[in-house]
Amino acid sequence: MEFNRNISMLGTSASIELMQRAEQLRMLGKDVLSLAGGEPDFNTPNRICRAADKAICDGFTHYAVGRGLPLLREKIAEKLWKENDIKCSAENIIVTPGGKFGVYMAVCTLINEGDEVIILNPAWVSYGPIVKACGGIPVFVKLSYDDDYIIDVMKIREKITNKTKAIIINYPNNPTGKVLSANEARQLADVIRDTDIFVISDEIYERIVFDGNKSVSLASYREVSKNVITINGFSKCAAMTGWRLGYVVADDIVTNMMYKLYTHTITGTSTFIQHAALEVFNCNEEIEEMRKIYEKRRNYFVTELNQIKGLHCRKAEGAFYAWVNFDTKKRSEEIADQLLQQTGVVGVPGQAYGENKNCCMRFSFACMDNVLREAVDRMKKFVL
Amino acid sequence: MEFNRNISMLGTSASIELMQRAEQLRMLGKDVLSLAGGEPDFNTPNRICRAADKAICDGFTHYAVGRGLPLLREKIAEKLWKENDIKCSAENIIVTPGGKFGVYMAVCTLINEGDEVIILNPAWVSYGPIVKACGGIPVFVKLSYDDDYIIDVMKIREKITNKTKAIIINYPNNPTGKVLSANEARQLADVIRDTDIFVISDEIYERIVFDGNKSVSLASYREVSKNVITINGFSKCAAMTGWRLGYVVADDIVTNMMYKLYTHTITGTSTFIQHAALEVFNCNEEIEEMRKIYEKRRNYFVTELNQIKGLHCRKAEGAFYAWVNFDTKKRSEEIADQLLQQTGVVGVPGQAYGENKNCCMRFSFACMDNVLREAVDRMKKFVL
Repeated sequence: MEFNRNISMLGTSASIELMQRAEQLRMLGKDVLSLAGGEPDFNTPNRICRAADKAICDGFTHYAVGRGLPLLREKIAEKLWKENDIKCSAENIIVTPGGKFGVYMAVCTLINEGDEVIILNPAWVSYGPIVKACGGIPVFVKLSYDDDYIIDVMKIREKITNKTKAIIINYPNNPTGKVLSANEARQLADVIRDTDIFVISDEIYERIVFDGNKSVSLASYREVSKNVITINGFSKCAAMTGWRLGYVVADDIVTNMMYKLYTHTITGTSTFIQHAALEVFNCNEEIEEMRKIYEKRRNYFVTELNQIKGLHCRKAEGAFYAWVNFDTKKRSEEIADQLLQQTGVVGVPGQAYGENKNCCMRFSFACMDNVLREAVDRMKKFVL
Repeated sequence: MEFNRNISMLGTSASIELMQRAEQLRMLGKDVLSLAGGEPDFNTPNRICRAADKAICDGFTHYAVGRGLPLLREKIAEKLWKENDIKCSAENIIVTPGGKFGVYMAVCTLINEGDEVIILNPAWVSYGPIVKACGGIPVFVKLSYDDDYIIDVMKIREKITNKTKAIIINYPNNPTGKVLSANEARQLADVIRDTDIFVISDEIYERIVFDGNKSVSLASYREVSKNVITINGFSKCAAMTGWRLGYVVADDIVTNMMYKLYTHTITGTSTFIQHAALEVFNCNEEIEEMRKIYEKRRNYFVTELNQIKGLHCRKAEGAFYAWVNFDTKKRSEEIADQLLQQTGVVGVPGQAYGENKNCCMRFSFACMDNVLREAVDRMKKFVL
């Protein structure tokens, strides 16, 4: 029996595997401290929860067919205009069961078997597999730790062939915490201007930025906006990972094409969850409150980590990860294992994100202060 | 710009389009009576709604990574064993955002570009597009109205080639209302026994059966169970269409393969919705109550329809559709339009399901009694 060749080749998600492994170890009674996950420790703001219950009570338990509730898509369009300088209408938006599915729809729609998609490394663990699942070839552009992972468009230009259909970018970046600067965005826009190459811009951490930073939305550059597919959602900013709600924004022709796949795979997302999501737009205070706490934790965590011999960590500009460089020739997977054995602290090895040159690990600081303190205490005793 | 060739070819879903069109006409003030939808008119049973709210309050708003909540998958496995004679463990189950996504995962995993999937017509509108979206070729076996749509395995055998990877079946059937008899199941099992061909068995209407009928689950035939992928969910039986929760059950090797795609597209379904779904297993009374009401409505609707000159309708054995044969040489799409213009009643033309020989239309009787009566009154005045 031969299964689909593209899917057969895939591994499972490294960060999901690690979250599960940590859970299993915990259930076996092992004293595990997991900083491997990629989600807020906060529960969802109460007013969103109350809105969900109200919508259920109001009988919004039936299909919401189409691209998503019109009112929700209008609110999203308004937000994109006001906060991200992205010009679009409700028709350009499809509400998806999580941002990941938005990335999948975008890639699936843009490419044919054998087409190439450029991915900037370090990159979130699922971009490569998504491209492969769709029959494409991921082409990795390795950004450099020593250059602080600034985008080097020359490296991108070198990798462009007549098979290149898209470039996936992700800012604020998971795992490095970098935001997209206006200068980088400008240069990226120049790369795709007057070409048929799309940029899939995953901006799921957009609201979680520090020190007054702002991550630029590439779709705000009018001359290339037709060639940008923006992915965003509610999971990270509003602590709604377990609700599964994201959205994808693109030009008419692309949205219509993605919608064909959507209608035959998803039908629609949960109706009352979409109603609850309307309330996210009234939660600016709660969202800002969480952001401030992440910033405080980052300050504490990064400062402490840098005092540990052999560890180096830059201040994340956004998202909620400490990207730690270990001063060793060992592979990051080995270090991750060693750290778990010695201290019970779980992080994700940088190799999972395509960082093979430096020995890096990703640790989430979206966890309670005492967990973070405990992690620091344990890591201080870690022998490289 | 060339998009994905398989997706470019797709149309959107005919029944979703019709539901939307009816909604639009209604908003324009037109007196429209839609029997086009495919969902219960009932709201979700209260105890399921209360369980959702409790789960949200209990903080189940974080990711549930993996194949689905272990407890939910255990309950599903138990249900499948007790009610469907399907032997499986929780590891064989993946919880999906709707049954449709389960069908998509199954097809996507089983086939490679150019492989063939046999679909029995009349068939639900999305099977063909799903096969095409995955790069496959849908091969339609036309069952005959005159034979009461009994499965003719000779017709299936004739269509099998070395490219045939799967056969999609759907019982209780949408749109015909037929259930799968033990005799048909036996013959189908003989077709795939000792081959590498899979049957994807969509049993989403399984609990909605009438007159003491039972639709057989093909996976209950031990000698072929490894080659059967069963799709089911909570949407139809428990009136949970707007929650988006289904599941797929298969042999280890197939489940592991589907899970690779799942983990890079979906991550998991909503955590608190999965908790709420645990309550479905305590809702046998509510489910039976709805089933009885569908049966009553079917009896009324079918009896009335058969008294209209030129209309013929057999009693559905399951699901909640009246599949009506119009005594005319016209195409069903034309009749659907004519009916809408003359009476405001919306149904789905049989052509959408691949019935091109007889002029049939599908009308849902999952709607309030007064709507059904009004539809009957209007259809009595319909001039063919």
